[in-house]
Amino acid sequence: MKIRFKAKVIDLFSRERAVVVSSKDAENADLRSFDRVKLTADETTITAMLYLSDKLTQDGTIRVSQELASDAGITDGDIVSVALAPRPQSVTLIKRKMKGATLSKADMGTIIQDIVLGNIGPMETLAFAMAQKYVGMNDDETEFLTRALVDTGDRLEFDSPAYDKHSIGGVPGNKVSLLIVPIVASAGLLIPKTSSRAITSPTGTADTMEVLAQVEFTASELKEIARKTNGAIAWGGMLNLAPGDDMIIRAESVVGIDPESQMLASILAKKMAAGVRNLVLDIPTGKGAKVETMEEAVSLANRFIDLGRRLGIQVRCGVTYGGQPIGHAIGPALEAKEALEALTGDGPSSLIEKSVSISGLILEMGGTAPAGRGYEVAREILKSGRAFDKMKEIIEAQGGDSRVKPEEITVGDHRHALYAPVDGYVTSVENRVLTEMGRAAGAPRDKGAGVVLHVKRGHKVRKDQKMLEIYAERSVKLQDAVNVLRRESPLIIEGMLLRTVPETMFLNV
Amino acid sequence: MKIRFKAKVIDLFSRERAVVVSSKDAENADLRSFDRVKLTADETTITAMLYLSDKLTQDGTIRVSQELASDAGITDGDIVSVALAPRPQSVTLIKRKMKGATLSKADMGTIIQDIVLGNIGPMETLAFAMAQKYVGMNDDETEFLTRALVDTGDRLEFDSPAYDKHSIGGVPGNKVSLLIVPIVASAGLLIPKTSSRAITSPTGTADTMEVLAQVEFTASELKEIARKTNGAIAWGGMLNLAPGDDMIIRAESVVGIDPESQMLASILAKKMAAGVRNLVLDIPTGKGAKVETMEEAVSLANRFIDLGRRLGIQVRCGVTYGGQPIGHAIGPALEAKEALEALTGDGPSSLIEKSVSISGLILEMGGTAPAGRGYEVAREILKSGRAFDKMKEIIEAQGGDSRVKPEEITVGDHRHALYAPVDGYVTSVENRVLTEMGRAAGAPRDKGAGVVLHVKRGHKVRKDQKMLEIYAERSVKLQDAVNVLRRESPLIIEGMLLRTVPETMFLNV
Repeated sequence: MKIRFKAKVIDLFSRERAVVVSSKDAENADLRSFDRVKLTADETTITAMLYLSDKLTQDGTIRVSQELASDAGITDGDIVSVALAPRPQSVTLIKRKMKGATLSKADMGTIIQDIVLGNIGPMETLAFAMAQKYVGMNDDETEFLTRALVDTGDRLEFDSPAYDKHSIGGVPGNKVSLLIVPIVASAGLLIPKTSSRAITSPTGTADTMEVLAQVEFTASELKEIARKTNGAIAWGGMLNLAPGDDMIIRAESVVGIDPESQMLASILAKKMAAGVRNLVLDIPTGKGAKVETMEEAVSLANRFIDLGRRLGIQVRCGVTYGGQPIGHAIGPALEAKEALEALTGDGPSSLIEKSVSISGLILEMGGTAPAGRGYEVAREILKSGRAFDKMKEIIEAQGGDSRVKPEEITVGDHRHALYAPVDGYVTSVENRVLTEMGRAAGAPRDKGAGVVLHVKRGHKVRKDQKMLEIYAERSVKLQDAVNVLRRESPLIIEGMLLRTVPETMFLNV
Repeated sequence: MKIRFKAKVIDLFSRERAVVVSSKDAENADLRSFDRVKLTADETTITAMLYLSDKLTQDGTIRVSQELASDAGITDGDIVSVALAPRPQSVTLIKRKMKGATLSKADMGTIIQDIVLGNIGPMETLAFAMAQKYVGMNDDETEFLTRALVDTGDRLEFDSPAYDKHSIGGVPGNKVSLLIVPIVASAGLLIPKTSSRAITSPTGTADTMEVLAQVEFTASELKEIARKTNGAIAWGGMLNLAPGDDMIIRAESVVGIDPESQMLASILAKKMAAGVRNLVLDIPTGKGAKVETMEEAVSLANRFIDLGRRLGIQVRCGVTYGGQPIGHAIGPALEAKEALEALTGDGPSSLIEKSVSISGLILEMGGTAPAGRGYEVAREILKSGRAFDKMKEIIEAQGGDSRVKPEEITVGDHRHALYAPVDGYVTSVENRVLTEMGRAAGAPRDKGAGVVLHVKRGHKVRKDQKMLEIYAERSVKLQDAVNVLRRESPLIIEGMLLRTVPETMFLNV
């Protein structure tokens, strides 16, 4: 049975699409609390969770949560009809996968469609990701998953072949895209980079770029920027590229899982939907990174190359050192500042080396540099200042201030420094602890929050020398980050007392 | 920072504890949407998810969801203070378990406490259950889990030793408790059974008993009933016994998982909290049941016996045939009817045999029957009518009508029969399909809904003979159940055409 309501939007974002009707209306329509219902408004049909309340709504009116209203294009006063949704078939398919089955192309299409339409919720989505983690998916399933993610969203198309680089993540301070995009664009290749905001890290490429310019564009605006400058560094979230991927990632982030098949599908689905046909993939490898050994890195690289071939994307992988942060700065504003410094010729060598190496791979892929000479060509573009000029063009095209100077970027003014407790050598820099500190300090929501490392692995330090500094915009957040320091050690110096027993004591902060 | 609000209860049940404040109040308190906040009212502190809305609430007022209000004892006008909740440690522990770690007693206590207090939500809880499924838990961890579940709830204590029976489930039509409780109570043993409502099956013992009497009692009411009659068949949900278990089961039911360690802990925690010291456990075994082979059944039985020993509960296990339903009826009213018929001497032999066998094991355990003679003694109690008289006493003590006759029980009047398409023998009866049909027909919410089997495995049927009948209270639900029949086959007759290709066609319905 279908019944019709007048919609009223609730100004509340929840994590599920939800609607509220009165208990009398529900009874008349034979609906119950927690039923999944199909809402039809104009031509859109969307699934939501039904709640009952007589205080929040009145007979004949349906209260619609904000995100549902945006997704379905519903505004106050619209007439929507409501009917019980049929039981989604995906639950059966996910259960089958959990028991070890292999899913077909049609199965995968059904699951992703149900996720995108909201026919199944975040819990079922998490179960799907966990089944991937523990049961695994073969190459066919991973391809089907990727295609299903692409097919349930929009696609960008560019006039000339688009290049891109992507990192599998896990290493803080990895602001290399802010150097690579202008280097590659300077060489004449098209590199309209769409990237994500941070999910579990202190900043994502989009968060960092947002310090310098706008990053939210429609597809036609993005094409126009790319047409003008050959480059762009934008947030992909507005473009509806593989939207199912965002929903899966959101479910995964609750317990921090990132199963290999989902990682492959997520990355390549976003690239395929964004019109990328040539990709250099950065696989940071080392203790504390997502991939710890060279063997795993090579095996993962081969899966990416193979999946790329199935999808028509040429993939080249660069295995890079991921055992500690790239450069010194962690956090949106601190990283934007360091990237600009590097573009003007004054950057840390780890950042410059990595950016130039990856740029070189792309230039070789695009035929702009002869095989084996990409590094040199890229280095020359950076050194000559052409990359910096290109970055200013891109910032301008994205509505930012192209005259910005690194020293003018605002960073947090609540600070706490960590000093070396003894003389010695830094034997270890812990990505995980630095990430946690950066998040605790308020990044990425507080743009000026983060961490600056003054020493890195192998450096010699003297007692009382400043080893790192935490930046925060709010004192409460600074305290949260200092509390992480109390519990865990971001840097270890050879010979340093790590703890005394029974009293637990790390560095003297 | 802590800020104080006047509470206003929203008459809406959601699946999470939720509060809503205005955006201005949130800004002043440095709180954001989706923050987990600690609410303090009187002496209770409870964690909830924070939402922002300016339409649903006003400055200075906090809107509190119904289940949060009940859990925390908050009523309209109460003053509550709100502060950001610290990050729950359980997420780290669950992640560690997901990676294969062994958890300590303290870890397990932290996780269960965070679940019960709402410091972590259903998604983290599901991840915990899935980690148990794929990583497993050893005997120590399972014991710690069980004790943590008991310790976070209330406990019942009886004056004399309490006996109980429990089935691990998975077989529809298993109404044996309605026979066993009166048989055992007749013999003079105390058997105050607390049971659950159906989660994924067409009816639970509490749903079935509710057709005949009330099942919701406080601890003192339940003790009074047991004191009068030696027996009781009540719903455990009101007694706050191992409440964390209910929350875990609710999360598991979304994707239908039931990992072994959690099943062990769930069952024995509920029994331990209910004051049971002697338990007979029914392990239905056979194709389509939770346990498919005798080997698995024996191994599971040994884990139950061992865990019982650690907890001070004497456990005896009965492996029973679980390859098809017990008796003929599936669904609350249909099963209550069949149980009453069996008590008056007119029941199907599978139901009587199983009930008498399990009762016999309990009587032997309690010394009421000599070893090896329990079956005979139980059978005599049933045959003599003493069990039926005892059941009438229990129904009366639970506020039901003890003069009820089986034929007076109301069952659904929307019906659909399935007829044999050919002559032959029934070679297979599918538990899973029958369960799905019963649920689709409206059980357990619609008490009169369900399925009656007219033939079972091995029976000879003639073409056009009635094989089963679906009962529903509402025509839409009958259609839902018929749709299950269109897709899947609850019974298979040797020689029957299963499908034609390309047209898919099962039984002729």
